[in-house]
Amino acid sequence: MRAAHRLTQRVATRQASAIAPTAGQGVNPAPTHMLPPVSLLVEQPEVGAFNPPKRLLMGPGPGNAHPRVHAAMALPQIGHMDGAFLQMAEEIKEMLRYAWQTKNPFTVPCSGTGSAAWEALCANLTSPGDKHLVLVNGYFGLRHCDMASRYGAEIIKLEKPWGEVFTPEEVDAACAEHKPDMIWVAHAETSTGACQPMDQLGEIARNHDCLLAADTVTSIGGLPVRLDEWGVDAAYAGGQKALSCPPGIAPLTFGDRALTKMDKRTAAGEQVKNWYLDMNMIKQYLVVNDFGVPRVYHHTAPISMAYALREALGILTEEGLEASWSRHRDAAEFFWNELEKIGLECHVDWEHRLPTLTTVKIPEGIDGGKVVTYLRENYNIEIAGGLGALAGKVWRIGLMGYNARRENAALVCAALRDALDAQGYYRAPGLLYPSRQHSRSSFHGSA
Amino acid sequence: MRAAHRLTQRVATRQASAIAPTAGQGVNPAPTHMLPPVSLLVEQPEVGAFNPPKRLLMGPGPGNAHPRVHAAMALPQIGHMDGAFLQMAEEIKEMLRYAWQTKNPFTVPCSGTGSAAWEALCANLTSPGDKHLVLVNGYFGLRHCDMASRYGAEIIKLEKPWGEVFTPEEVDAACAEHKPDMIWVAHAETSTGACQPMDQLGEIARNHDCLLAADTVTSIGGLPVRLDEWGVDAAYAGGQKALSCPPGIAPLTFGDRALTKMDKRTAAGEQVKNWYLDMNMIKQYLVVNDFGVPRVYHHTAPISMAYALREALGILTEEGLEASWSRHRDAAEFFWNELEKIGLECHVDWEHRLPTLTTVKIPEGIDGGKVVTYLRENYNIEIAGGLGALAGKVWRIGLMGYNARRENAALVCAALRDALDAQGYYRAPGLLYPSRQHSRSSFHGSA
Repeated sequence: MRAAHRLTQRVATRQASAIAPTAGQGVNPAPTHMLPPVSLLVEQPEVGAFNPPKRLLMGPGPGNAHPRVHAAMALPQIGHMDGAFLQMAEEIKEMLRYAWQTKNPFTVPCSGTGSAAWEALCANLTSPGDKHLVLVNGYFGLRHCDMASRYGAEIIKLEKPWGEVFTPEEVDAACAEHKPDMIWVAHAETSTGACQPMDQLGEIARNHDCLLAADTVTSIGGLPVRLDEWGVDAAYAGGQKALSCPPGIAPLTFGDRALTKMDKRTAAGEQVKNWYLDMNMIKQYLVVNDFGVPRVYHHTAPISMAYALREALGILTEEGLEASWSRHRDAAEFFWNELEKIGLECHVDWEHRLPTLTTVKIPEGIDGGKVVTYLRENYNIEIAGGLGALAGKVWRIGLMGYNARRENAALVCAALRDALDAQGYYRAPGLLYPSRQHSRSSFHGSA
Repeated sequence: MRAAHRLTQRVATRQASAIAPTAGQGVNPAPTHMLPPVSLLVEQPEVGAFNPPKRLLMGPGPGNAHPRVHAAMALPQIGHMDGAFLQMAEEIKEMLRYAWQTKNPFTVPCSGTGSAAWEALCANLTSPGDKHLVLVNGYFGLRHCDMASRYGAEIIKLEKPWGEVFTPEEVDAACAEHKPDMIWVAHAETSTGACQPMDQLGEIARNHDCLLAADTVTSIGGLPVRLDEWGVDAAYAGGQKALSCPPGIAPLTFGDRALTKMDKRTAAGEQVKNWYLDMNMIKQYLVVNDFGVPRVYHHTAPISMAYALREALGILTEEGLEASWSRHRDAAEFFWNELEKIGLECHVDWEHRLPTLTTVKIPEGIDGGKVVTYLRENYNIEIAGGLGALAGKVWRIGLMGYNARRENAALVCAALRDALDAQGYYRAPGLLYPSRQHSRSSFHGSA
C-alpha cells in the first residue's frame, strides 16, 4: 500500500491512537472495531487535488454557472423528507411555472440531467403502440425517435433540413395523415440553433386529439416560452443553459391532458416501465399540496442540486423574465453583427435564430475542429462543433444565462478572428476587419 | 407584476439603460432585442433567500457532506467533453475501484441518485423473462422486485424476517430449485440495518450459472466491501452515505460476466429499454481507455456532482479504506454501548449489525414518531422511523462518513434520553442512567 501523500500517514496515525477500545459492557462480545490487519486487492491510488482549468463555456451547454448558484451548493445538507426541503421544492415548482409561463400544478424537478426529464416524459406518456409524430430538423429530433421507441412508440418522422423550421400547415397535414398520439417538437433545437414557432401547434394537437410535447432545454429563461398559451401538454428543460445552474437536475411539467393520459394508462393496468422516473410515484413525493395525498418517500432527492436550481430560478425571478429575454436577445444580436464584421455567416435565417445558441458556418478551407482546439488552448474558451448532419459544417456557440453578455460575444469574435488568421483565412477588404499578415500563426505554432 | 424586492427594480433599471440598440449594419432587420412590452400569464413570484435549517443528519442518508466536498462544488464548471473532465472521470473510476475493491474496467458514475444506478443495473442486465432470485429481508428487496419486473424479470422472492440474513445454504437451495438468471442481494439493508455475509454467494452464482448483483449503497466506504473476492458481478452504491457526498451521482460497476450478458443481449437484438441509462452508450462516453473506442457524447454529465464525488473519494483515499472502516466500527460500537446505558435495544443481532446504520427498537408505550419530531425540533437532529414491516417499530440512526464520530453518537443518545423522558419513559434503576423526574417534559411543552 502506497501513501497518497504525507497527509495520509499523519491522519492514519492520529486515527489509530484515537481509537482506544470502548470499555467492555459485559454483555456484548469484545469490541471488534480494531479490525484485524487486512490485505487489499486494489491498492490506495495516488490522486492529488483537482484543479479544473478556467474555461469560458460558450458552447451549447453547460455554461458557466452563476457564482451565487455555486454558493448555494455550499449550504449544508438537509434531508429529502425534511419539511424545509419540501417547502423549498414548492418554491422551485412555483418559479418553474413562472419561467415556463404555465399554471400546471404538476411541475417538478427530476433527479438527473435534462435527458432524464425527457426520458420521464417518454416513459410516462407513451403507451406501447402509440404513434409519435416527431418533428425532426436536428439531432435531438432523432434522439426522441430513439428514446420513445424504447417505450414502444411507433415513430413517424416529419423531416426538414437541419436548421429550418416547420409550418403549422405541415404539422396539421401530417397529423391528418398519421393520427398520432403525440407530437414532439424541439422549441429550441440545440444542434441547429433554430427556434420553432409554436403558435397554432397546440390547437392542431387538440384538433387531432393528441398531446403536444416540447423540448425547451435551450429556451427556458433565455427567450419567450409560453407553454399554456401555446397549448403545450408536456415539456422538459435543463438547468445548465439559460438558467445558469450546473447540470444534474431537470425541470418537467405535465398539463391536464398529459395527466389524463397517465391516469388512463394506470386504469388500463399499464405500468410505467421505469421505476426511477415513474411520475405516479414522484407525484406522491413532490405534488401533495396540489393533489391532497400524503408525502411518500420515493428516492433520495439530489439535495445540493435542488439548492442550485432554486438559487438559479431565484436569480431569474429577481431579474425578471422580460429582462432576461431582452438581455439574451441583446447579446445575441450584438454577436451576430460582430460575426458579420469578420465575414462569418450564421447557418439559420435571422427570423428563426435562437438567441441562446448560434450555429456559425465554418468557412470553406477552414478546419473547424482546429479552431475549436485553438480557442480552448489559447483562450480557454469552449465552443463546440456540429452534430450529425452539421458535423464539420458549423460551430455551435452559446450565449446563455450568466454568459449572455456582450463582453463574452466580443471576446469569442476576437478569438475566432485570431484562430482564422492562424489558418490563413482570407477576409475581403470591404469588411470591418480585413485580413492581415499571418505573423501570428507561426507565433502560436499552429497552422 | 410585483417586484420580488427592491434589488429587482435596481437591476431592471440598470439593464434597461445598458441595452442601447446595436448600430444597424444595413443588412439585417432592425435589432429586435428591445422586445415589445409583454404580458405574462404567470406573474413574478416573491421568493426570498433560502436559509436551510442547520441539521445533524443521523438518519439513513443523506448524511452531512464533508466541507471539502461542498468546497469542490464551488469550483467553476467545465464542459462534459473537455479533456480535463474526462481525465477527472478516470480518477473517479480508479478511486471507485479502490473503494469497492474491484478491478472492473467498467466502473462509472451514473447521472442520478443511487436508485438511478440501481435502475441502470436492472435495465442493462435483465432480458425479458429472466428469473431474478431476490433476497428479501427488508424494504429494498421489495424495491428490486418492483424495479426489475418493469424490465420483464420474473421475480422469485426468497424471504426472511426483516433484520435477519440469509445463509449460503438457503441461497444455494433456492438456486437449485428456481435456476435464476440473477441473484440480487442487499449487502447493507438500509431499512433494517442488517449486513448480509457475502462469502460463498459468488461461488453459488457461478455454480448455478447466474449473475450476482449487490446493493452496496450503505456499505461502500463504511465497512469492508470486497466485490472481486466475493465474486459480485454487478453492484451500485450511493454517494450520500459513508462517502460524505451529497446525493445526485451514483457509482455502478459491471464485471466480465455482466458485460458478457450485455453483449449477448445486443447480439440477440435486444435493446436496453432505457435511453438515459443505456450502458452500451455510456460505455462509449466514459470507458474508452479500457475498450479502445473513441469518446462519444451521450448526455450532459452532472459536472458539479462529479467534482463532489471525486473530492469525496479523494478524502476516503487519503484516510485509507481500513482507517475509514475502523472509524465507522468504532463510532458504531460506542453508540451501541451508549444505547444500552439508556435501556434501548438494537433490532439486529450484534454479529450482523451494520456499523453505518443502526435500527433501534422503539420501547413499548413510546410514540416513535414523536421522538423523531422531538429530536428535530429541540436538537436539530434528523433520525428516521422504520419502513414497511418495521414502521412504528424501530428508529433508523446512521453513523456514516463525515458523521461517523463518537461525539455525534453521544449527542444522539443524550437527545434520545431527553425525548424519552419527555414521554415519561421508565428506565430501570440498574441502568447507568435511570429515570429521573419528568420536569423537562412540561418545560419543552411536548408530551
